Amino acid sequence: MEILMCVTRLREEEKMMISELNRKNIEVKVILDSMSLPLDDIFNKRYDLAIIRCLSQVEAKKRAHILEKAGLKTMNTSASINVCTNKILQALLFQKHDIPQPNYKVAFQPGDLKDSQVQFGDTFLIKPATSSWGRGICLIENQRCLDAWIAARESLDVKNKEFPVIAQEFINKGNFDIRVVIIGSFPVVAFKRVSNESWKTNTHLGASVVPIVIDEEIHELVNKVIDAMDSGVYGLDLLYDFTQEKYLVCEINQNPEFAQSFKEHKVNIPFLLASYVEDVIAQDRKENVYG
Amino acid sequence: MEILMCVTRLREEEKMMISELNRKNIEVKVILDSMSLPLDDIFNKRYDLAIIRCLSQVEAKKRAHILEKAGLKTMNTSASINVCTNKILQALLFQKHDIPQPNYKVAFQPGDLKDSQVQFGDTFLIKPATSSWGRGICLIENQRCLDAWIAARESLDVKNKEFPVIAQEFINKGNFDIRVVIIGSFPVVAFKRVSNESWKTNTHLGASVVPIVIDEEIHELVNKVIDAMDSGVYGLDLLYDFTQEKYLVCEINQNPEFAQSFKEHKVNIPFLLASYVEDVIAQDRKENVYG
Amino acid sequence: MEILMCVTRLREEEKMMISELNRKNIEVKVILDSMSLPLDDIFNKRYDLAIIRCLSQVEAKKRAHILEKAGLKTMNTSASINVCTNKILQALLFQKHDIPQPNYKVAFQPGDLKDSQVQFGDTFLIKPATSSWGRGICLIENQRCLDAWIAARESLDVKNKEFPVIAQEFINKGNFDIRVVIIGSFPVVAFKRVSNESWKTNTHLGASVVPIVIDEEIHELVNKVIDAMDSGVYGLDLLYDFTQEKYLVCEINQNPEFAQSFKEHKVNIPFLLASYVEDVIAQDRKENVYG
Amino acid sequence: MEILMCVTRLREEEKMMISELNRKNIEVKVILDSMSLPLDDIFNKRYDLAIIRCLSQVEAKKRAHILEKAGLKTMNTSASINVCTNKILQALLFQKHDIPQPNYKVAFQPGDLKDSQVQFGDTFLIKPATSSWGRGICLIENQRCLDAWIAARESLDVKNKEFPVIAQEFINKGNFDIRVVIIGSFPVVAFKRVSNESWKTNTHLGASVVPIVIDEEIHELVNKVIDAMDSGVYGLDLLYDFTQEKYLVCEINQNPEFAQSFKEHKVNIPFLLASYVEDVIAQDRKENVYG
Repeated sequence: MEILMCVTRLREEEKMMISELNRKNIEVKVILDSMSLPLDDIFNKRYDLAIIRCLSQVEAKKRAHILEKAGLKTMNTSASINVCTNKILQALLFQKHDIPQPNYKVAFQPGDLKDSQVQFGDTFLIKPATSSWGRGICLIENQRCLDAWIAARESLDVKNKEFPVIAQEFINKGNFDIRVVIIGSFPVVAFKRVSNESWKTNTHLGASVVPIVIDEEIHELVNKVIDAMDSGVYGLDLLYDFTQEKYLVCEINQNPEFAQSFKEHKVNIPFLLASYVEDVIAQDRKENVYG
Repeated sequence: MEILMCVTRLREEEKMMISELNRKNIEVKVILDSMSLPLDDIFNKRYDLAIIRCLSQVEAKKRAHILEKAGLKTMNTSASINVCTNKILQALLFQKHDIPQPNYKVAFQPGDLKDSQVQFGDTFLIKPATSSWGRGICLIENQRCLDAWIAARESLDVKNKEFPVIAQEFINKGNFDIRVVIIGSFPVVAFKRVSNESWKTNTHLGASVVPIVIDEEIHELVNKVIDAMDSGVYGLDLLYDFTQEKYLVCEINQNPEFAQSFKEHKVNIPFLLASYVEDVIAQDRKENVYG
Repeated sequence: MEILMCVTRLREEEKMMISELNRKNIEVKVILDSMSLPLDDIFNKRYDLAIIRCLSQVEAKKRAHILEKAGLKTMNTSASINVCTNKILQALLFQKHDIPQPNYKVAFQPGDLKDSQVQFGDTFLIKPATSSWGRGICLIENQRCLDAWIAARESLDVKNKEFPVIAQEFINKGNFDIRVVIIGSFPVVAFKRVSNESWKTNTHLGASVVPIVIDEEIHELVNKVIDAMDSGVYGLDLLYDFTQEKYLVCEINQNPEFAQSFKEHKVNIPFLLASYVEDVIAQDRKENVYG
Repeated sequence: MEILMCVTRLREEEKMMISELNRKNIEVKVILDSMSLPLDDIFNKRYDLAIIRCLSQVEAKKRAHILEKAGLKTMNTSASINVCTNKILQALLFQKHDIPQPNYKVAFQPGDLKDSQVQFGDTFLIKPATSSWGRGICLIENQRCLDAWIAARESLDVKNKEFPVIAQEFINKGNFDIRVVIIGSFPVVAFKRVSNESWKTNTHLGASVVPIVIDEEIHELVNKVIDAMDSGVYGLDLLYDFTQEKYLVCEINQNPEFAQSFKEHKVNIPFLLASYVEDVIAQDRKENVYG
């Protein structure tokens, strides 16, 4: 078996994955963002799968769409990558599938944000449709903040080309969120990311990692999310809403990082990933024979 | 029945469509690019369909993806729009489905174009992945031309962010191409676009329109293309390869223009479009009841 | 005599100017942004002057620099246009020439804005370096506003390429500012722009125009400003600081609009402009003969 | 004495300069592109000069303009940097000052390039207005090349925003050009850059360095160039036109590199640079006392 792995660079995560894949006799051809895709080989069915781990969302989407159209299965699928890289598409999909999430509004223009204030009260979040690592996510606490946000955007995007954005109810979530790592269709580990300094709880911003048990409620949420999307490898972020006393889905990510959190939760994600890759390929080959 | 029509502005084409839709008692809510999408009404199942006719490919894609994720069927589907607005995805899809087309190579970087010269000989075309109305399509006739093309791109995109592009064999096609208008899964009209002045044959560049009979070969090509894609409304462009003596698919477009060509071929495209819309909605409703 | 007039389009202002210039037997060759500059004729000394009235600041700068390097005098000079189109350069120049202005800080990165809060208190303005018609100018009233502004910018410019910006003390200026139109080195009219709805007082945002007398203090400010810059045609904006009880220079603009305000103040700016053009050309010719 | 040095990073060149400056008791405060300029200290006259060595032309221009407006002398002056970073402004300035150079045409739009073919014959160069290290410079050898260049640009800049560019006669220059390093107003070293592989002769592309004597003709050219510009530190590139049997000025650059060429010509440029800095500061102080 031989697979492609599209990456920007080989981080700790990718190195660990390759090592586990090799132990299962799956060869990995690494394709950096600067390299051409081997399309002739792909049409000749040389590869069984492509794992997309590019850091740039634009690059990840480009590569997945090209590979899929050339007939190579990608992990995640291009449809999933589309959703994972766009917070608006996520929110709409979750709503359509009755997945609990914070109330939100898609703002197609600045005026729509003023209506959000009416809807959510003075305090709400604005998130760009595409954003990684919490960048550009903004807590609006009053009319003046909203005016400042609008003016700052106007100073760089006078024609509102970079709209829509999403406005989201601010959840009484305490000082943590929950990251659930999904492999295939199953949650393999869950942990709190606790931050006492900021309402943002991304680990790269310094939040600490506390493993938790994957309970019934989390299981059910993961099922619903995977029903709405393709199976794959995801980092699902949950908020615990202390007002409603239940979990809400905050967002879903592709390419979850695990090199840091592994030190706390000890779940061997690279091994699970490699096993999942093996299963997907085996299943695929069976379908091609009997399908 | 009520549908959305997303447009940049109401051109002759859209006005004719609305008029035919209204005659079938289908109300049309027009959404300009500057307007917000009525997502609450969409989740409340107010609309039966959204026709996407935005001139900007970026806008068309944005709108179709959002509407579909909110559960509204779009015409064309977002998957089809993805393919229609990207010449690379098209070529790969056609190859995977054994649809005859000019030989091509996806160039992920300038160096890949130098290999194209080896593959196609000195004369070949370069096409940007996304381009409308023939813009940026370029005939390379020798090494010096290729150097000029590469230098011009380098002057604006030193990091090759706007790659990949597609290199394509130049076909001995005479002074015309064939435009086939597809509605649903069927070709409804075909016509030559003849140009004696340029190897580019887009009607907006002054090519003249000569209706032709839709023969067996064209029918078969349309079947193969629709099998590879979703049914919808398309302008399929064919080349007649005088060397191989057969048709090749050049490209597939969404939103075909017909206000000009109608004067020559007299096929009532707006009426056919409205009938197709009616069918799609009826079928959809049936599925929702019995499905 | 023949001059060039570089414009984006002929507005009321430019038409009035051309008519007055023609009455003085000065022919005007209009150059739209889409047209090439007649450099051969310029090197052949065919034109006496170029009036730069392009709406785009980028275009105005490009044209003025090219024309000057080819030896044609421009009105305004490229050095003046550089200053008029950049609020940071203005503030520095005014400080160097002891021209009273609001306190300010050049922010080269987001962190510098946090220092501004210490310096100015919670309330201050942020202005992009380049901005027309008040666009992107933002009133920051508390830490949360500043966070919102920074997040909004981060969402579009993660590398801070569009920095520096300017932070400016908010002046207790009442509901108006003062526009002084300068022709050559002299103020030819001054008027209040009164707005009861917004702290922004640009006329295009609906402020009303009330002519005022050009007093000693205004005269002196204009002298200082012209000493610091080249003579030319300017719209100088003043604030009356009710705390210090004196005028402050808010900013200086090129290409002042006058078609609307003329209805109130009745000063024949196009005539004065044409006379100034005549003087400049006469002076220039004299210098070329005796210089 | 204390000066600022604005750099992107400290290369060999800058380290050598700092070491020589320190030996003359001139302290150097290094300002990276990511750092804020110390404007308060500048208004307080703490620094005597700022050396601008940013690699990005945009950054170099921004920094020089800000520093000059705040009253600090920059080396080179912002006016010189404007010219050095724009091949169009250079060509116009050289023409105005009768400095011999290749024939050229400023192309404000693609159509102007077609006229260039008439003017220069089929073979000519196209150069972007702003370009470093020979990037984007293109040899056009026939009509088809020009079409390819235009199509490639159209694919990225459909509105011609990145025009004007410059078309330039191709000079029968042999396999070398001449780099003359100017410090202050004097040529301090000249050397051939010989390339047997490409008509481009930039050293970073692998051209070899052969020192030559600075003859009368070169001296005179340098005088004319410095008369047209401010004194400063330049890399002046000459072509020897074997048809006319004389030197032509090809272009003038700021921030000449010397770490590589030094190995061949042995002229101690960092020392000469430091001496020039010392002279400029001494002269400046004298003027401030007696001026």
